[in-house]
Amino acid sequence: MTDTPTSPDRIWTAALLIIGDEILSGRTQDANLAYLAKWLGVQGIRLKEVRVVADEMESIGDAVKALSAAHDYLFTTGGIGPTHDDITVDAIAAALGVAVTVHPQARAILADHYGDQLTDARLRMARTPEGASLIENPRTKAPGIRIGNIFIMAGVPIITQGMLAALDGKLQGGAPVLSRTVAAWTQESAAAATLAAVEKAHAGVQIGSYPFWRQGKTGANFVIRATDEDVLAVTAQALMTALRDAGIEPIDGEL
Amino acid sequence: MTDTPTSPDRIWTAALLIIGDEILSGRTQDANLAYLAKWLGVQGIRLKEVRVVADEMESIGDAVKALSAAHDYLFTTGGIGPTHDDITVDAIAAALGVAVTVHPQARAILADHYGDQLTDARLRMARTPEGASLIENPRTKAPGIRIGNIFIMAGVPIITQGMLAALDGKLQGGAPVLSRTVAAWTQESAAAATLAAVEKAHAGVQIGSYPFWRQGKTGANFVIRATDEDVLAVTAQALMTALRDAGIEPIDGEL
Repeated sequence: MTDTPTSPDRIWTAALLIIGDEILSGRTQDANLAYLAKWLGVQGIRLKEVRVVADEMESIGDAVKALSAAHDYLFTTGGIGPTHDDITVDAIAAALGVAVTVHPQARAILADHYGDQLTDARLRMARTPEGASLIENPRTKAPGIRIGNIFIMAGVPIITQGMLAALDGKLQGGAPVLSRTVAAWTQESAAAATLAAVEKAHAGVQIGSYPFWRQGKTGANFVIRATDEDVLAVTAQALMTALRDAGIEPIDGEL
Repeated sequence: MTDTPTSPDRIWTAALLIIGDEILSGRTQDANLAYLAKWLGVQGIRLKEVRVVADEMESIGDAVKALSAAHDYLFTTGGIGPTHDDITVDAIAAALGVAVTVHPQARAILADHYGDQLTDARLRMARTPEGASLIENPRTKAPGIRIGNIFIMAGVPIITQGMLAALDGKLQGGAPVLSRTVAAWTQESAAAATLAAVEKAHAGVQIGSYPFWRQGKTGANFVIRATDEDVLAVTAQALMTALRDAGIEPIDGEL
């Protein structure tokens, strides 16, 4: 990591590992994926892969090794609280082959926050893999953790979002992916050939088609993605013209 | 797969592969994970792992191979529509080393639904890996696909849910995981030692702790999970007694 915030010539990628039985049981609806994806987009980093695993040492360790090796950055959410099911720090340290230690600065933050109520359980939140640095937690103090290219964050969305705010602009990234949406009240199958032809005619562009059913009507949003604003604008115009030629009335924007 | 719906002596596991750039960009919030997790729970199957990958042949293929080998069942969502970015069938066929063919029964379903409007794009939705069978789609007709232990489903939640309804009670599973929640207006760190002790004292039980902040107050839900209803009831009583002994007033239920 350097202080240079962008490096437009290469694509920077990230993975997210969501840790928690409560997600896999369906009890809790994850809200970190979409937030992190958008936050990363602003930093010029693309979220390329997400995994969700149970609160189990081996499952966490295997995923951490695979994802941190395959991507520039790995973010984890969940399992860094004070209770017995919070094993993320232990699992990541084991995967990296380093010890778990109480981080002096984290201990000081918690001592300042809890005063003489700093119990053993709360002190668990000062434990980090050896060699880690801290990520500020403006909401509930117990810090996130950075080790190598791994960013270990809380599972509760409002805490995670605070930690991301603390990292804003500090990660090296490339050109952000921009997007623009053209929509139509049509079955997407009627537009399929048009979409494929327009995508093929514009290098560096991806077009995704997302159908929906509302008020008894069928529609679709066509999302154009590119890193160049001019390319995006040209493609949007070309797509609207091509849709009109195919007998489909386009809407400039999202439905 | 047999017609025997349950086999309580062993644990049946499933994975979910969510396919789609729109999830990884943060544009679309996934709603299939939590629904599938609960549906699987009723069938006596545990969702153990989830991955989200981009609309890319190799990413899909690698994940399909890993997840279908590691679990009894693999469900995929997304990428089976009529447009050029819908490549799930091709990617899975390639990963399995089989050809893609137009499934006669799927073709008949689409011909019946679309009549003389059965364009090439729509016919894409009749393509399956060779050797596959179909999963009924009561909502929009284009069927889901089963091949081996892989269940290929739509990405749009209302369609996915219809496909799951068509599979209800048809998959072999074990004993469903039951859960019961005890809550308290407390910081979870104050209850941490109690939770660990109660979990340790009750074999076959897991207790998860899920903190929240509401109306300026701190609380936590303690979710007890087990496959035996009596064990669940005994553990819940023991947890409430232990919390009270620790000076924390328990609530029998979720906050």
